[in-house]
Amino acid sequence: MQLLERAKQLEAAGRRIVHMEIGEPDFSTPASVIDAAHAALDSGDSFYTPSTGNPALQQAIARWYREEYGVDVSPERILITPGTSGAFSLIYAALIEAGESVLLSDPGYPCQRNFIRLAGGEPVSVPVGPETLYHLSPGLIEQYWQSGTRAAVVINPSNPTGTLISDDALQQVAATCRRLGGYLISDEIYHGLTYGLKARCALEFDDNAIVVNGFSKRWAMTGWRIGWVIVPEELIDACRRVMQNIFIAAPTLSQYAAIAALRATDDCERMRLAYDERRRYLLEALPELGFDIVVQPQGAFYIYANVERITDDAKSFCWEILENVGVAITPGEDFGTYRAAGHVRFSYATGMDDIRLGVARLREWLQPVSA
Amino acid sequence: MQLLERAKQLEAAGRRIVHMEIGEPDFSTPASVIDAAHAALDSGDSFYTPSTGNPALQQAIARWYREEYGVDVSPERILITPGTSGAFSLIYAALIEAGESVLLSDPGYPCQRNFIRLAGGEPVSVPVGPETLYHLSPGLIEQYWQSGTRAAVVINPSNPTGTLISDDALQQVAATCRRLGGYLISDEIYHGLTYGLKARCALEFDDNAIVVNGFSKRWAMTGWRIGWVIVPEELIDACRRVMQNIFIAAPTLSQYAAIAALRATDDCERMRLAYDERRRYLLEALPELGFDIVVQPQGAFYIYANVERITDDAKSFCWEILENVGVAITPGEDFGTYRAAGHVRFSYATGMDDIRLGVARLREWLQPVSA
Repeated sequence: MQLLERAKQLEAAGRRIVHMEIGEPDFSTPASVIDAAHAALDSGDSFYTPSTGNPALQQAIARWYREEYGVDVSPERILITPGTSGAFSLIYAALIEAGESVLLSDPGYPCQRNFIRLAGGEPVSVPVGPETLYHLSPGLIEQYWQSGTRAAVVINPSNPTGTLISDDALQQVAATCRRLGGYLISDEIYHGLTYGLKARCALEFDDNAIVVNGFSKRWAMTGWRIGWVIVPEELIDACRRVMQNIFIAAPTLSQYAAIAALRATDDCERMRLAYDERRRYLLEALPELGFDIVVQPQGAFYIYANVERITDDAKSFCWEILENVGVAITPGEDFGTYRAAGHVRFSYATGMDDIRLGVARLREWLQPVSA
Repeated sequence: MQLLERAKQLEAAGRRIVHMEIGEPDFSTPASVIDAAHAALDSGDSFYTPSTGNPALQQAIARWYREEYGVDVSPERILITPGTSGAFSLIYAALIEAGESVLLSDPGYPCQRNFIRLAGGEPVSVPVGPETLYHLSPGLIEQYWQSGTRAAVVINPSNPTGTLISDDALQQVAATCRRLGGYLISDEIYHGLTYGLKARCALEFDDNAIVVNGFSKRWAMTGWRIGWVIVPEELIDACRRVMQNIFIAAPTLSQYAAIAALRATDDCERMRLAYDERRRYLLEALPELGFDIVVQPQGAFYIYANVERITDDAKSFCWEILENVGVAITPGEDFGTYRAAGHVRFSYATGMDDIRLGVARLREWLQPVSA
């Protein structure tokens, strides 16, 4: 976060900064979604939807789950939230009593820890490495699960590593959580941004899983603040009560736009192909510069690289290259503590020209190191 | 809430229901705001704003405070939130440690209690009556304040009573909170919806007050989910950290629309005059039916009526009139416990035709009672 602020400062001062630190699509929202929003604006409906969402959107998402994953989800289980941030605030508020815990992978999405703490819970970091594709495994879950543990979170594809969990592992992780009396929370926000593989929905394996997704990444709709969470029947009432109190409802216009987004398949494919081109370029270029990519990422728009050949202090290294060559990437410590000083995250949610420029700048800067 | 659901059920079954239970404007968002939203949609900016909001909106609100109240607020102190719900989640998360308390009036806005509990705090209900215009007073604050108390909340104009706090009382309440080492939280969401008086901003009396407001009520923009909170300098950093984690940011499009809303003065005045007509009609009609209005409400779109001449069980009474004559109003118990069984809330956020119909239906139903 501080690094991002510094990058913006340098930019404001006239420097050209290559932004490979940002986890936000560089694409604007698809035109067909914008068209739908224009129409919704003119409808005169600027009122609250029900707390759980516009029923037409809940139904559209239910249909989409049938088509996309072949799973049947009743629309009432699909709760529309202000982004996935809203989804996580909601499920932790509904699920966790003070002192209860949730298992998270380290490295992992840093806000998770804060969502859990704000709900009075305790985040438990589980170190993960290449041997499990940087994901929780059934064995790790058994090892770290305690009496007050309520859930384990899988981010698939992973932020920061871009790796997918294997189908077998996902199935077994779901079964393990259920057997231990808790929930699998599957963060599927990067679904649809996969290259060569398809990410599986946790509901394909366990109807009791809690699935979080949203329109921010695949559909390039970050500023619309619109996501959803699918919960088991038994949690609907508790979630509805929390929603009535803490959000009232997700933005009405965004909910109309989201219905159109579910049909914007061609736009999504165009963006996916662009990300993949960038990914392939970086996967070739980075190892030559000394960045070791231990597991090839097949999803999201992230590459998690081992920098131990270059530095033993990833954080200082990130600040150095920002100040010296204007390339912004994220140090491992933003995602946890486990081997954090030896890793960085590259985001390729920025255009090819900038990515090439960033690589060229790094090549020049690192010449003495990798030589 | 259950009553609202039942009202919708009856409506779905073909009954015409008069909705005087709903706290949402019946007006659509002003046309000039819709126009601005169309333009923003076409700009291609669908990205996150900074967590604390679009700087142009922060600046526009700062200007508005100078014009509206004559107070100087630096834009960085104005944090843009997803509705006032977001503002309350934010400030309680930033302000309260587990077990600390916040003083609330009873009757008062029911979600407040839940916001505070979700942040691990303890809401303390302070019974208020006509003698303080249903507001916290300096004496009540002194009486209920404890070592772990962090703040007292004034909703001005009040929900559910529609009453304004006096200027003197507001000034003294602010001074008392400060002297006791805590904050006044002034909920000003119904500002601009006042009839004959102007509501004063707490910042006119105390630069250290926390002020919450938003576009939902005065500007008829509920579904846009856009509000703000003004915090003292010393809280900005803590709030920013919470915002980065729990919201990321308020909806981008709504933030553009909000800039235009601040200029939609004529539209706001048109709506205000319509509310006032309804208010004056009800203030005349209700007492004749047996509803005693002890303090004339001069703000919001609510009338809080004493029903002790009619019933000793306001809740059953509300259900009875819903089922029998299709008029929905809210029982006192939705706003607290103090003398709750003797009070109901009428909302006049519904059209004159419906209000007349509701009064006619009540007159017929209550004939034997008031005769």
